[in-house]
Amino acid sequence: MAVGLGPLPEFFPVAGLRIGIASAGIKKPGRKDVVVFELAAGSRVAGIFTRNQFCAAPVTLCRKHLSSGAPRYLLINTGNANAGTGDRGLIDARACCAALAEAAGVTETEVLPFSTGVIGEPLPVNKIVPVLPDALSALADNNWADAARGIMTTDTLPKGATRQLELDGRLVTISGISKGAGMIRPNMATMLGFIATDAPIAPAVLQSLASELGEVSFNRITIDGDTSTNDACMLMATGAAGGDEIGPNSPCLPALTDALREIYMTLAHAIVRDGEGATKFITIDVSGAATHAEALDVAYTVAHSPLVKTALYASDPNWGRILAAVGRAGVPDLDLRALTLTLNDVCLVRDGGRAPDYSEEKGQAVMDQAEITLGVHLNRGTVRERVWTCDFSHDYVTINAEYRT
Amino acid sequence: MAVGLGPLPEFFPVAGLRIGIASAGIKKPGRKDVVVFELAAGSRVAGIFTRNQFCAAPVTLCRKHLSSGAPRYLLINTGNANAGTGDRGLIDARACCAALAEAAGVTETEVLPFSTGVIGEPLPVNKIVPVLPDALSALADNNWADAARGIMTTDTLPKGATRQLELDGRLVTISGISKGAGMIRPNMATMLGFIATDAPIAPAVLQSLASELGEVSFNRITIDGDTSTNDACMLMATGAAGGDEIGPNSPCLPALTDALREIYMTLAHAIVRDGEGATKFITIDVSGAATHAEALDVAYTVAHSPLVKTALYASDPNWGRILAAVGRAGVPDLDLRALTLTLNDVCLVRDGGRAPDYSEEKGQAVMDQAEITLGVHLNRGTVRERVWTCDFSHDYVTINAEYRT
Repeated sequence: MAVGLGPLPEFFPVAGLRIGIASAGIKKPGRKDVVVFELAAGSRVAGIFTRNQFCAAPVTLCRKHLSSGAPRYLLINTGNANAGTGDRGLIDARACCAALAEAAGVTETEVLPFSTGVIGEPLPVNKIVPVLPDALSALADNNWADAARGIMTTDTLPKGATRQLELDGRLVTISGISKGAGMIRPNMATMLGFIATDAPIAPAVLQSLASELGEVSFNRITIDGDTSTNDACMLMATGAAGGDEIGPNSPCLPALTDALREIYMTLAHAIVRDGEGATKFITIDVSGAATHAEALDVAYTVAHSPLVKTALYASDPNWGRILAAVGRAGVPDLDLRALTLTLNDVCLVRDGGRAPDYSEEKGQAVMDQAEITLGVHLNRGTVRERVWTCDFSHDYVTINAEYRT
Repeated sequence: MAVGLGPLPEFFPVAGLRIGIASAGIKKPGRKDVVVFELAAGSRVAGIFTRNQFCAAPVTLCRKHLSSGAPRYLLINTGNANAGTGDRGLIDARACCAALAEAAGVTETEVLPFSTGVIGEPLPVNKIVPVLPDALSALADNNWADAARGIMTTDTLPKGATRQLELDGRLVTISGISKGAGMIRPNMATMLGFIATDAPIAPAVLQSLASELGEVSFNRITIDGDTSTNDACMLMATGAAGGDEIGPNSPCLPALTDALREIYMTLAHAIVRDGEGATKFITIDVSGAATHAEALDVAYTVAHSPLVKTALYASDPNWGRILAAVGRAGVPDLDLRALTLTLNDVCLVRDGGRAPDYSEEKGQAVMDQAEITLGVHLNRGTVRERVWTCDFSHDYVTINAEYRT
């Protein structure tokens, strides 16, 4: 059901980074469910993590390891989230890191753990640890596609993006993968993103990029409003492309930022396109707001409204539901008369009511498309925010009602 | 599909109040879709209204009329919400009030208007006005059941509650009706509640009761998190039972408050029981909170989580989803280890993970019931709040995807 999501690209390898895959059979026998990223010495890693207060054990440990040194390995398993597992969860996550560290000849804190899958079941350490040597011996620079498939949970398609650009006379590569059929869903439980480049990026710049680009991409998508306990998105820079370190005032930073943003956006939108039960890819575009906070309040209230989402599923241009969602977004002193609502280039609401030139036929023509921009112009400021979401279908209920059965 | 919702009771008439019904054929020919309440002179009316900023024209006008004098008539139509209708909506609402006032020999501001139905279509004044004399000639004190049916939209069953009690040696009656297949749904668009008593209640006390009882009942139910543009709940006191006016220090106020609360709760819960597509009636019971705000944040986050609601629909004791919803409720410094999660009397989560004595069989046994209390004990204070909701089923999607087709 993925909306406008094509096959994986031919990934450009990222110099200084190798990927190994192995099969631990965590949930399904034979499934390649363990992925290891190996980074060359001197690589930098930055990331953003779930804001759910009950974050999973691997998230807690990953933050800790990330703050204590230079990571050399990322260890990802699917099939089990190691969340809601109490003290034992931390012990298990550490055991996996320690085993990989020992096999690879590094220290435990140089391994970052990531888990995704069912919440509340103990991590099957005894299945994961024995296959870590397999993952290490499989390390190669051209395993991106296998990694994209390896981290999937209920995704119907693997998700990846890759590009090259010239920076300061040198060829630089960016490749990335993501997974999740909802950014924001605790059951599977998670969205994950891994983006790597061989550009030499200074640590402070890398963290800024990870935060800022994560904010406008992965933090602007929503399937159902639920926040995973395991979400993480990591940005890695090996520096293997050579050249001067890219600092905050580097002339090539804007071009690098643009290229990275494109990768982030593609990977984030891919998650929405593959949203559980999704039949439509929706951009909620709020403009004319006085502040970013109110623009986002309006955008998320519309994006999370079950009534708006079911109307989108039904291809019903039910602007009354959109209007009502905007009205309950908690923005003080909203002026209905100043508001404009649009679907692509069709104006639905103006001057406090249905636009005089609107017709159901015009609205229906937009609604029949698979990709729709729902515009809300508040006409009280200059701030604009965009959020991406999908519709709410019978299949969403089926998928989530039957997940564990 | 209504969960545990029986037939209407035999209503006790409320002295000083008569009800008339008529058929304007607003949406369906022959449907009795116009309801008029007539109050004896000297009656008092108080109410609470939607907090949606884009409230409908009748809500705006009703507030205005309520503040300007003593209402004698309530005029309710179903089939059209008169919302998102701009200036014309106000003119139309006023025209209906004026027509009823003229036919009844009162002034326009003594009529309170209420509309429910589709948003964004002009109110068919030319259908409503001609039948107002019919409604007036039908006025009788025993028309409560017809009124309960007359205000329905997508409700599958009419909703009512009635009781009598002795106050200060006099028999006092309370009767009420409500409608809505979601408190909080803008499409139909609305929940409405009308409760009347013949007790002589002082105006300030009446408004306090309307606010406080509305808060713990109608403002604690949620189907899908959407806020109607038209919600209103009115409390009427005719005083026809006689006796001293009931003021804030009246000895009989506690008993009256208890009786009214019971009616409010029954009418509010009836809306959830008849929630669109509902197969389960869920009480979210949050205790051990430090503040009411955080208790409600947790309760509503759980109650609105599509993942929790689809798990409830599937009778799946998926406590990971509940835990994740609590964790994203925005309550600072929540301690997972202090948290207890229960389903009825079965403990799911304790000490940061699955309760040692929990088994899927125990969870399943509760989940197979139609009425479930989901308990969240935060163990950080003494505040408790309860919220009522229902599950999220295929039928919810079907009903809302096909509403206008």
